Amino acid sequence: MNRSEALGAVFFLSVGLLRGESGYDAWLRYERLSGAALDQYRQEVPAVLATLDESVVSFSARDEIVRGMRGMLGRTLRAESSVPQESAVVLGTLEEIRRAVPAWRLEASLAADAFWLKTVTAGRVNYIVITASNDRGLLYGAFALLRKIALGEPVANLDEREAPYAPIRWVNQWDNLDGSIERGYGGRSIFWENGRAREDLRRVGDYGRLLASLGINGCSINNVNANPRVLSPDFTPQIARIADALRPWGVRVAIAVDFGSPKSIGGLETFDPLDFKVAEWWKSRLDGIYQAIPDLAGIVLKADSEGRVGPSTYGRSHADAANVLARALKTHGGLLFYRGFVYDHHMDWNNPKNDRARAAYDNFHDLDGKFDDNVVIQIKNGPIDFQVREPASPLFGALEKTNEAIELQITQEYFGQAFHTVFLVPMWKEVLDFDTHAGNAMASTVKAVAAGKTFARPAGGFAGVANIGLDENWSGNQLSQANLYGYGRLAWNPDLSAKRILDEWTKLTFGADSKVDNTIAAIQLSSWRTYENYTGPLGLQTLTDIVGDHYSVNVEASERNGWGQWHRADENGVGMDRTVASGTGYIGQYRPAVAKMYESLETCPDDLLLFLHHVPYSYKLHSGKTVIQYIYDSHYEGADAVAEYVRQWKALRGRVDEQRYSQILAQLRYQAGQAIVWRDAVTTWFQRASKIVDAQGRAEHYPGRYEAESMKLDAYTVHDIAPAPAEDASGGKIVACTGAAVCTATLDYNGEPGWYTLNVEYFDLANGISHYRVFVGKQLVAEWSGDLRLPSRRMDAGASTRRVIPGIALRPGDEIRIEGRPDGREQAALDYLEIVREKN
Amino acid sequence: MNRSEALGAVFFLSVGLLRGESGYDAWLRYERLSGAALDQYRQEVPAVLATLDESVVSFSARDEIVRGMRGMLGRTLRAESSVPQESAVVLGTLEEIRRAVPAWRLEASLAADAFWLKTVTAGRVNYIVITASNDRGLLYGAFALLRKIALGEPVANLDEREAPYAPIRWVNQWDNLDGSIERGYGGRSIFWENGRAREDLRRVGDYGRLLASLGINGCSINNVNANPRVLSPDFTPQIARIADALRPWGVRVAIAVDFGSPKSIGGLETFDPLDFKVAEWWKSRLDGIYQAIPDLAGIVLKADSEGRVGPSTYGRSHADAANVLARALKTHGGLLFYRGFVYDHHMDWNNPKNDRARAAYDNFHDLDGKFDDNVVIQIKNGPIDFQVREPASPLFGALEKTNEAIELQITQEYFGQAFHTVFLVPMWKEVLDFDTHAGNAMASTVKAVAAGKTFARPAGGFAGVANIGLDENWSGNQLSQANLYGYGRLAWNPDLSAKRILDEWTKLTFGADSKVDNTIAAIQLSSWRTYENYTGPLGLQTLTDIVGDHYSVNVEASERNGWGQWHRADENGVGMDRTVASGTGYIGQYRPAVAKMYESLETCPDDLLLFLHHVPYSYKLHSGKTVIQYIYDSHYEGADAVAEYVRQWKALRGRVDEQRYSQILAQLRYQAGQAIVWRDAVTTWFQRASKIVDAQGRAEHYPGRYEAESMKLDAYTVHDIAPAPAEDASGGKIVACTGAAVCTATLDYNGEPGWYTLNVEYFDLANGISHYRVFVGKQLVAEWSGDLRLPSRRMDAGASTRRVIPGIALRPGDEIRIEGRPDGREQAALDYLEIVREKN
Repeated sequence: MNRSEALGAVFFLSVGLLRGESGYDAWLRYERLSGAALDQYRQEVPAVLATLDESVVSFSARDEIVRGMRGMLGRTLRAESSVPQESAVVLGTLEEIRRAVPAWRLEASLAADAFWLKTVTAGRVNYIVITASNDRGLLYGAFALLRKIALGEPVANLDEREAPYAPIRWVNQWDNLDGSIERGYGGRSIFWENGRAREDLRRVGDYGRLLASLGINGCSINNVNANPRVLSPDFTPQIARIADALRPWGVRVAIAVDFGSPKSIGGLETFDPLDFKVAEWWKSRLDGIYQAIPDLAGIVLKADSEGRVGPSTYGRSHADAANVLARALKTHGGLLFYRGFVYDHHMDWNNPKNDRARAAYDNFHDLDGKFDDNVVIQIKNGPIDFQVREPASPLFGALEKTNEAIELQITQEYFGQAFHTVFLVPMWKEVLDFDTHAGNAMASTVKAVAAGKTFARPAGGFAGVANIGLDENWSGNQLSQANLYGYGRLAWNPDLSAKRILDEWTKLTFGADSKVDNTIAAIQLSSWRTYENYTGPLGLQTLTDIVGDHYSVNVEASERNGWGQWHRADENGVGMDRTVASGTGYIGQYRPAVAKMYESLETCPDDLLLFLHHVPYSYKLHSGKTVIQYIYDSHYEGADAVAEYVRQWKALRGRVDEQRYSQILAQLRYQAGQAIVWRDAVTTWFQRASKIVDAQGRAEHYPGRYEAESMKLDAYTVHDIAPAPAEDASGGKIVACTGAAVCTATLDYNGEPGWYTLNVEYFDLANGISHYRVFVGKQLVAEWSGDLRLPSRRMDAGASTRRVIPGIALRPGDEIRIEGRPDGREQAALDYLEIVREKN
Repeated sequence: MNRSEALGAVFFLSVGLLRGESGYDAWLRYERLSGAALDQYRQEVPAVLATLDESVVSFSARDEIVRGMRGMLGRTLRAESSVPQESAVVLGTLEEIRRAVPAWRLEASLAADAFWLKTVTAGRVNYIVITASNDRGLLYGAFALLRKIALGEPVANLDEREAPYAPIRWVNQWDNLDGSIERGYGGRSIFWENGRAREDLRRVGDYGRLLASLGINGCSINNVNANPRVLSPDFTPQIARIADALRPWGVRVAIAVDFGSPKSIGGLETFDPLDFKVAEWWKSRLDGIYQAIPDLAGIVLKADSEGRVGPSTYGRSHADAANVLARALKTHGGLLFYRGFVYDHHMDWNNPKNDRARAAYDNFHDLDGKFDDNVVIQIKNGPIDFQVREPASPLFGALEKTNEAIELQITQEYFGQAFHTVFLVPMWKEVLDFDTHAGNAMASTVKAVAAGKTFARPAGGFAGVANIGLDENWSGNQLSQANLYGYGRLAWNPDLSAKRILDEWTKLTFGADSKVDNTIAAIQLSSWRTYENYTGPLGLQTLTDIVGDHYSVNVEASERNGWGQWHRADENGVGMDRTVASGTGYIGQYRPAVAKMYESLETCPDDLLLFLHHVPYSYKLHSGKTVIQYIYDSHYEGADAVAEYVRQWKALRGRVDEQRYSQILAQLRYQAGQAIVWRDAVTTWFQRASKIVDAQGRAEHYPGRYEAESMKLDAYTVHDIAPAPAEDASGGKIVACTGAAVCTATLDYNGEPGWYTLNVEYFDLANGISHYRVFVGKQLVAEWSGDLRLPSRRMDAGASTRRVIPGIALRPGDEIRIEGRPDGREQAALDYLEIVREKN
């Protein structure tokens, strides 16, 4: 580098600023305390950290305490290996503490991974003891102590024990070996690239740290739609490298496998699970893997689902399939996760008795008791597929002699991906706290059943499909980090409230400014309801393009195909009749108390009404509002709520570091525009279908909106939009610039003089960067490029994007001209111009 | 770009954040107002902006108003070309206003570049009129209106006229055609690369905007040590392109030329200014340039100085040289700036009568009246060369029939370059307000003389050597931007106070947080005195390596050579005797009243004592303190002051955007370390020279300091340091790692137990990145790379850098080990370790 070029950068480089508030450190920022809090913790935290345990995980705990205290207190604790004659933090297993701390006269036993923070006094010396029965517990205790300080909680006279709610607290990565991630919205894989483990696995180590801070102890590192190569012997070192990177954080690695592997890569002629050679092959191959990775946590298997091969090829059962792998894992202490997500995606839509929601129960209920003790059935929270709202899967309450884990999706596949803020913890809480009425135990909630408590199962717990990738902020959207945090905290302790979890996350991630924290809480805690309001209320499910990007609004995409995400809305009514009495009988899969509640319209909750019943549009909800009016109202409420988020966020300017402030503002602004697209699409569709007009007259009436196709066009041409005209574009038509370098759409303004905001709705595709200019008369008032990279690959609602141009003074007679220059395959397409009066 | 990689970045790209608070927008950020201020200005600023004048400069004014109002008020004014029937901002020359605004009944004339902001009421309609006699005045008026709003000043009922103090308000770029910049510390040239104007000149346009906002109207675009190529005909288009980029901002371009050009590129056998062919050549070449750039402002010439050829080659005078160019410029209205910086740099040090400070006066005084009317003698503020403190040049008061301009150096050549914060306005103010006692006019201050007021000269004013380059923040150091701002504001109105200028700059650059503004004011306004205190008090000049980088401390570098920056400190005393009575007679160059004040020790100000007198160390200042004790005290005060700046700045965490907060914190921390290096070097040198010990016992006694050479060394070897052992390293010795991959220096600590800061003083060169680790016992407590890119190219005081490691708990018996790994030509060299007790 040339000297004079380098000079100015010198203080920039030496600070390493960009990582500072990029979101990379997530909730482990260890921001420096100040004032009285700093003074107090400096008094209370001793200078010495004695680490009695010598495992690699304990050393992570030690290093984390040093790092955290250095960050928060500006002090480097003295890392010693024995208990000093002065006050100290002492880190050691119960046995080590008993031996080394004479003042310790406590008897206790602690579950695996549990920890105990306990202050012990010996004369003038205080020991802050962090103890556990295993090193992972020590690590969790270390993170807990640091979190207390970061949250401003007292650390004098500690006496706190925490044990995890369930032994299984895993994340699943749907990362492909080529580095792409199925349903990943936070960048490419941190694990894989070009068919191998990445050269640089530091991100994996840093991810392990994030996971450990939440108590997560397992990670399945490749897509459940598994590449058979993962099992080939020459690939094992790749897995081992990743296991090495996660091991210091107490995170054990699992892999997802393809059930056809014995044949596809094993050289056998069959993969029949009851074939002796197949069983031998699994055993031998897994023995080989365990030689390289003795602590492999297990295997995740997706079989007989969505085109994956499975035991049905040979007429065998899921139990046969699961057990053949489980037995190969057993001697190594490994678990076999068998995914409950098995269904027929070629069902006949015309048969009103067909019901995908029944599939999990129908597939697994009869097999209860047939699975080995190290098999875990991994059951999605709802019976369909991570929709905006579903009832708890009836399978949870239906297995008494089989291990379960609840599969939650942290990545926002049906929740706006990285482009919408939706805090999922309240939804998860609702499912986890749902009472299955299974068994005779006191605790029959989903969480209790899944954790193995209800039926005293040897295994059970949580599997979360992760939302992270190589993006500097891990998740694509800064606020989506809260979902990973929330998942981990719930897996550790599902009794925590959503508000408590969110408050922790916000304070750790953004600092202790109460205005910031309150604003983020207001946004995040209402965000699920808001998203549901504009995407699919009353149990309609997410009304998206289910056969495409799972992102764009498309009310009919779920119908008339075999995928079974049907809502059966038509001109007469809406909803899937899943009653026992007249419908698919799905409700009968629940225990009687639940079934009774769902079966009756009297007691069925409004939020799930259309998931469970088919009703006319005029059906009155418990609130007295009709279904159709609720659909209208909720969509307007949802869109208004996001607009309000933008206003709330803008009030934080100067209180949040600029990098994250700007990114979140841009994200919320975009979301506010998309919420209007959803609102308009869904309300239009239902108004046309139901022929019952919105009592408030809003649907299909947009004051100040001028359709592009009705403007004076020069070179722009009018197009019908496919596949769903009424939803994909306002007025069902767009204008596109297909045959010219520049096209214009012009409007003669004849309204009142005043200050206005101009909203230009246009289509921003990923395969081109069109350029737009807006003129009032001869004056250029706005100019931008369509450079967003949205999930949509075609001109549909998901590509529809809003440019908000505030502060424009209009006078009668003004000519408003929008000029578009297409680029690549992006045709500078416009939907409409909206002119909104501003208050003076 | 791969899709999933791109996704996360989407909201990042669309905000363009990095430029946001990078410093690029400097004082023209137009940050959005809020609350009552926003409401009020939205009421007071009308919706229409009528621009009556149609020049490119007026259009810049119009666009700037639109941009500024959009930024601050969130509103896009309606840019119209005639006066509307509603309230408006009206931009037009006096003549245009008279014609178009019926309510305008005012008679006035305005000087060139002056402006008038005047509210005119016609019924219910208000016009905010911005008027001037020329378009540049309109542009300056536009910036003034925007600045008022940004500063929160009222804009209702305006009636403000401002005229520039002087017609010449220029910057000089010392940019070489290869893209390097002589004494440039803000990156490479924005004008040149590889011998041509840069392809992308947008930065030049943006620079023009910054300059115009200050009223700067001329820019000399190449180094005064000029490459003859600048005059070759095929190069003219390069100059023209830059002139085109600056023209919309009313900034006229000038060039610096080589006096030997008629011979070196013109094909003549001579460059004798009195040779007819030479005169013809200059005329013809300049005619050619004016054909391409009709508004070329003129030429800057450095001749007969520091190796540049000049008229002395032919025994001609400076007037002969200046006039031959001036006559070629005359018909085009161009000015010839002849630099007064002419001196002999091979003077005999042993002759006590020799004095470089005399040179400017001696060279030019006798030529007064011999220069054409379009010649301007460009005189540096002091008689030497931009030292930390000099008296005003006596030449200012000595020319009555010659145009002058004062040359101020905005770039911090002798002021710590981009690595130290020094706000130069207070120094400039002192010179500008200095009374030369010239002429009989009331106003005989330097500013009045230089502006041409005292002797009613046709030209006069300001030339500032700029401090900008391609760095994102222009200046390398964010706080150094204030110097460019301050220079421009002083050139416009030298009667503004330093505080007023700084308050404006701070508010515009960092916003209106009073804690931020007060802190920055406290730092900036004291920074010159602080820097002087640790680099060269009492008129000693900057005690730096004057034959090298002009950065590192080196007390003797100025002595025993021909450069004439002598301070003549020896064992008996210190200071240059420039008296008439016994010295060089320099004081006699001033007008009698000034000479009398300086000649007498009674009346000579302490701050200039050693610049003007040679005194014994025991000489008592007016304060009663001895010179030697003042040298000790001021150095400690200076170093302490920078340490205090760091503390003050840290209190702004969260109030200043993180990017600038971090950069400035890193810069101030570094400066705090260098101030200690200076302090120790200078106090040691003078204590050894004077043999009078510091009465406070500080010099050469450093509690808690352990010299590296006295530590237990493994592979490190001890070296004497050249060229100035006592100044370049504490104890005169360093340890370097020259023959091993890793070297260590170890100390057995036997002090009190407690919390300590460890300061490791090491040498950070630009030609390698050594790696350091510090251990206490087995514990790694700090780790860093020597990755600064400082001006020093060798191990000297300027490369000496401090790593501050706070929060270390030490106990008696601890072993402190510093480990260095050399890299490239950087030898992981250490000076010392300092152990400083922290308060608990």
